[in-house]
Amino acid sequence: MVLESTVKPCDFVLFGTKGDLARRKLLPSLYQLEKTGLIHQDTRIIGVARNEMSLDEYVALVKENIEKFSGEALCQDTWQQFSAKLDYVKVDMKDTASYGAFKEHVDASRTMVCYLATPPAIYGDICKGLYQADIIDASMRVVLEKPIGHDFASSQVINDQVAEYFNENQIYRIDHYLGKETVLNLIALRFANSLFATNWDHNCIDHVQISVAESVGIEGRWGYFDEAGQMRDMVQNHLLQILSLIAMEPPTDLNADSIRDEKLKVLKALRPINSHNIADKTVRGQYTSGFVKGEEVPGYLEEPDANQKSGTETFVAMKVELDNWRWAGVPFYLRTGKRMPTKSSEIVIVFKPQPHNLFKESFKELPPNKLTIRLQPDEGVEVTVMNKVPGLTGSSAMDLQKTKLNLSFSETFQDERIADAYEKLLLEVMMGNQALFVRRDEVEQAWSWVDSIIEAWESSNEPPEPYQAGTWGPVASIALMARDERNWVESSVKKKK
Amino acid sequence: MVLESTVKPCDFVLFGTKGDLARRKLLPSLYQLEKTGLIHQDTRIIGVARNEMSLDEYVALVKENIEKFSGEALCQDTWQQFSAKLDYVKVDMKDTASYGAFKEHVDASRTMVCYLATPPAIYGDICKGLYQADIIDASMRVVLEKPIGHDFASSQVINDQVAEYFNENQIYRIDHYLGKETVLNLIALRFANSLFATNWDHNCIDHVQISVAESVGIEGRWGYFDEAGQMRDMVQNHLLQILSLIAMEPPTDLNADSIRDEKLKVLKALRPINSHNIADKTVRGQYTSGFVKGEEVPGYLEEPDANQKSGTETFVAMKVELDNWRWAGVPFYLRTGKRMPTKSSEIVIVFKPQPHNLFKESFKELPPNKLTIRLQPDEGVEVTVMNKVPGLTGSSAMDLQKTKLNLSFSETFQDERIADAYEKLLLEVMMGNQALFVRRDEVEQAWSWVDSIIEAWESSNEPPEPYQAGTWGPVASIALMARDERNWVESSVKKKK
Repeated sequence: MVLESTVKPCDFVLFGTKGDLARRKLLPSLYQLEKTGLIHQDTRIIGVARNEMSLDEYVALVKENIEKFSGEALCQDTWQQFSAKLDYVKVDMKDTASYGAFKEHVDASRTMVCYLATPPAIYGDICKGLYQADIIDASMRVVLEKPIGHDFASSQVINDQVAEYFNENQIYRIDHYLGKETVLNLIALRFANSLFATNWDHNCIDHVQISVAESVGIEGRWGYFDEAGQMRDMVQNHLLQILSLIAMEPPTDLNADSIRDEKLKVLKALRPINSHNIADKTVRGQYTSGFVKGEEVPGYLEEPDANQKSGTETFVAMKVELDNWRWAGVPFYLRTGKRMPTKSSEIVIVFKPQPHNLFKESFKELPPNKLTIRLQPDEGVEVTVMNKVPGLTGSSAMDLQKTKLNLSFSETFQDERIADAYEKLLLEVMMGNQALFVRRDEVEQAWSWVDSIIEAWESSNEPPEPYQAGTWGPVASIALMARDERNWVESSVKKKK
Repeated sequence: MVLESTVKPCDFVLFGTKGDLARRKLLPSLYQLEKTGLIHQDTRIIGVARNEMSLDEYVALVKENIEKFSGEALCQDTWQQFSAKLDYVKVDMKDTASYGAFKEHVDASRTMVCYLATPPAIYGDICKGLYQADIIDASMRVVLEKPIGHDFASSQVINDQVAEYFNENQIYRIDHYLGKETVLNLIALRFANSLFATNWDHNCIDHVQISVAESVGIEGRWGYFDEAGQMRDMVQNHLLQILSLIAMEPPTDLNADSIRDEKLKVLKALRPINSHNIADKTVRGQYTSGFVKGEEVPGYLEEPDANQKSGTETFVAMKVELDNWRWAGVPFYLRTGKRMPTKSSEIVIVFKPQPHNLFKESFKELPPNKLTIRLQPDEGVEVTVMNKVPGLTGSSAMDLQKTKLNLSFSETFQDERIADAYEKLLLEVMMGNQALFVRRDEVEQAWSWVDSIIEAWESSNEPPEPYQAGTWGPVASIALMARDERNWVESSVKKKK
């Protein structure tokens, strides 16, 4: 099968195999790749944790996770092949001397991929341990999970620690939004369709909206989240990554650095936000108790382990401007928060209105065309166009209506199961393609832009504005757009019946 | 009901009520308008023919026609209201003295609409008869059916005869293509969607195709058709009307003359075709015996009453160029013929290819976006876009696929019955709106352009090229586009299962 040629065998080492991410996402994703036949038969999947565990115990544990989190009945054949690839090594990851145990588990003839699903604090130790055990070579790849620090300075520390042992071309920084079908499709839509490409600038686009709404709250991670806040947790990585894919100039090709060079240029063009303009450009919110989907939920400060005085934001809305040729005068409105009415991630490209309205009898103001790219749930693409209402009326005026040209994956490709973002990214790592991973200079550029905003917030001494759980955030978020005579496009997610 | 205000009562006089057009199209369409509640209750529908007939006989005849041609079971309530509006007058239309009979049937308090569903040869007589009977006033409207002559000169004769008694603003020249849902929707799509409007010129459009294919042959009208030929019968009116709607500049408003002024400008911009370029720009065809939908059919010269030596074309393909700013270098390829494989009328806007192909692994040449407007059957609009093939592959190259964003009326608006073009046009006449009717200068401009082509054909002394019934015409039609490294887009009409 073709795959053999592209997907090479590797030793896939999963550090922190007992952690949340590994159990919920990584192991089930690897299992799905196995099912799709995309894992090379000679590949080994080696779990690493500090616990004493027999291979049988580990295999049983993995099986349990997959059954619990894959969301489907276990396929026996797949499990047969998959479990045969499993291996386990006990390593005290902080003890750089204990990595010798690896030797007999890995095979220099295979590429080694180390996925660090651990707290970033120990990335350095792991790299050093591998180095001391003398199992690092130029072919080895290391995958880093976010957060890469909580600001520019701390990200440098982590990146430096890893860079001591690995070159940038060996380092794969995960932002799982880059693995989503519709985010990838965004690249296809933009660059494979002149209908969109010729409209993709300040001449034709009025503004862009990126909304990432979560209905959940903190989910027992209060302490962790309170250190970060929504800006660090969501904007610095996911939203800025999406923004740069939307805004980047056409790359020369789809090679990793061609794309990342263009994304970096976008991040560099972000107009700085600081104490001078913070009030005009940003809104911070923190949710209070309320109702989400009819269920009563506590406020952020009433969550378990909450520090009553926390000024951490659980909601951010901002007006982002790009100082470059293509996007002059085209604001990007970003909005992300917890405890919103529904879980919904959407990009909406709002095109300029028609210069002259021929259909005043039907619409005083002609609604603009919109391109909606829905990341979740129900990934899909929609183009809102105006067309004639079919049928006859007793008037010669032409009645128009909005119609959606729909390209919803789940509808259009019913048979297709939509792969989880992690499946795509794990596959890309095994294939050694960095295009969908974040380069160090991107991380640092994003942090330095975000740092200035957070500093401005802190120096303002103003607390985040409260918003009731189950709403779309503080009214100030609506005002942010209203000042520009615009408003947030309502989520296209279909309400559950 | 609102309609009362817009649809005024009228005396709708149907000259030639026993003719083919009246029986198959006009009477059933009037019945449908009644059913939709779009005929004013005080409106009268007065049939005119030369036959001695009682009103009861006429009503029975109309009922029979409607049952036969409306394609649905008769609605008793509708028929009640409709038949109550019917009236009949015996007039020898050629005998201008016999129009006095009208007097007691019409009512000066109602607007009089005279639909001339008769041979154009007697338009003059009818107008004169009405005049002598002194029942013409400034509010009266006259509806003329095609053909308005068979060339520029003869069209002038007919138009002059009518103009002797009516002003241009009283004259409604029918081109039923202008009443089709999707032709009207073309106006909405073009001018209500910046996504299309900003792409609507030589910068973004590569070429336009207009194909009007009939699967039928001559249907016992050999003599009539042989006089005309496909160029006069289809191109001079329907295809040039569609072309001018696609190509016209945005009008100031949707008023009749605003639109018709713009259409006229397009017709004036048509690059002349004459003996110098006839061979490069046009293809004439005449069908020979063959198979259509599996059924053997005779050739044009073998049809009943055929003149074996006829050199009349049953197929035309042409490359039309517009000498104006918007369309410089953008050819419009026209194709229309009888005995084609299927009945299909389509407009295809083919946009320019992407300047740079990022997806070479997937498509050596990236297919261009296409906007397809299907006039019949199954009226609808389709936009062909490229998007990512969902799912994972063993390669990092992004696989693309063509997808159709579909806006098919019959699918999208299943409940809606799609009104026949004649319903729309009859309604517009009753409302006194000329926007969808052809102005005299349009007719004349179209004729003078067409005349030059027909003259060039005749002076060439070359017979039309034979093509087998059930094919898409002579190979020369393919060659016409192949010379420009283009080809006809295959009909999007779904094959019957």
